[in-house]
Amino acid sequence: MRDEALFQLLLRLGDNALILGHRVSEWCGHGPYLEEDIALANTALDLVGQAQLWLGLAGEVEGKGRSADNLAYLRDASGFRNLLLVERPNGHFGQTLMRQFLFDAWSLPMLTALGASTDTRVGDIARKAAVETSYHLERSTDLCLRLADGTQKSHDMMQEALDDLWPYTGEMFLGDGVDTVLADDGLAPDPTDLRGAWQKTVQQLADVGTLTLPDGQFAHKGGKTGRHSEHLGYILSDMQFLQRAYPGATW
Amino acid sequence: MRDEALFQLLLRLGDNALILGHRVSEWCGHGPYLEEDIALANTALDLVGQAQLWLGLAGEVEGKGRSADNLAYLRDASGFRNLLLVERPNGHFGQTLMRQFLFDAWSLPMLTALGASTDTRVGDIARKAAVETSYHLERSTDLCLRLADGTQKSHDMMQEALDDLWPYTGEMFLGDGVDTVLADDGLAPDPTDLRGAWQKTVQQLADVGTLTLPDGQFAHKGGKTGRHSEHLGYILSDMQFLQRAYPGATW
Repeated sequence: MRDEALFQLLLRLGDNALILGHRVSEWCGHGPYLEEDIALANTALDLVGQAQLWLGLAGEVEGKGRSADNLAYLRDASGFRNLLLVERPNGHFGQTLMRQFLFDAWSLPMLTALGASTDTRVGDIARKAAVETSYHLERSTDLCLRLADGTQKSHDMMQEALDDLWPYTGEMFLGDGVDTVLADDGLAPDPTDLRGAWQKTVQQLADVGTLTLPDGQFAHKGGKTGRHSEHLGYILSDMQFLQRAYPGATW
Repeated sequence: MRDEALFQLLLRLGDNALILGHRVSEWCGHGPYLEEDIALANTALDLVGQAQLWLGLAGEVEGKGRSADNLAYLRDASGFRNLLLVERPNGHFGQTLMRQFLFDAWSLPMLTALGASTDTRVGDIARKAAVETSYHLERSTDLCLRLADGTQKSHDMMQEALDDLWPYTGEMFLGDGVDTVLADDGLAPDPTDLRGAWQKTVQQLADVGTLTLPDGQFAHKGGKTGRHSEHLGYILSDMQFLQRAYPGATW
């Protein structure tokens, strides 16, 4: 029970990082200017690195000999446990940054709480990832503000990005049976407890950047339990091609 | 020698139909209006059907027990022999139609010539495919004309599509060692002999549609011998996903 819940948590954390990392890596060579191109690639690398740690531990906890690579490249869409938010298409540069900001603003308090997990292996990875994530949040906040507070056009584009992504943020705070087991064992925080910190960070951006937070309460959900949007299939067909076409290939 | 050349010819014909068919199928559900959506899907189906016949015969000629499905789904990009033209992205509706027209205008005389191939198996498939292709050419000509002869904007978009695709048309008329063997044996026409008919069809469209044929002579090449643009890899990762992830899966 505990180990199955822990395995699910690790897949959720690993898949969030892996899929968002893949999405961000799609910008490589297409950034609006060189510094941003490199910064995005670095963010993607951080995330893929975190995915490797989470999925490596997931395989260990599962105890069936599956490696991080195996979990990343040989599961089909229904086996993935990432939030629907991270599989949203990149859209324009501002949309990618707004997605990053909304995720970072949740990820940092999540990782901070996980740093005190009763499972020290989880705590160790979480504290390392939290350091990287605090930089990501600093960057995504800064860039979202600059665009929201830029021209009328860039402001409107950021408002639109926020409106589009909003219905995908609620899933971060929805708990299920897995989360209950985890919280009871002190392995991970109750998802609903993270909303306060997230809301504060997001409200701050809205205030300074003169953006209006949507008041809709509707939340798309399903990602955490393996029900995904069509986008994930396309991500996987791209991401997994090499291992599917050349099984077991190594560098 | 003869059989190896024949195998290459069949891959070229099959891959042209398969890749163009896949590209056109990407429109399914995204056509500008219902009739066109269905017409595009039908064109895609014709092409995939032709691919099945050509690749089926290719496997037979090769004599290693590879089926049409095997050739379609288990070769990597370097094993494909299609023209670079057919892997060009769809772009807008007019661009898709211009690509179709430029291909059809070559494909019809090609298939007509193949109808008289000294290999009756080739002749049989070619005559069947020629009937479908004459409809495709009628349609793509008609729609390209309507757009070229429509508003100033639609005219300019068709001119741009023609300019963009032009450097990818030359490969259709470039012969190599394989073509020489085929022509000597009366298996297939010499590619250069098809230019006259193609040029006439294309010039007619230009005249009636007040389009200007580009005068550039530069021709991208490589597709016929397995050197492809990056686009083919993405097409294959999408097209081959199911058979790669679930090897041997059948309906």
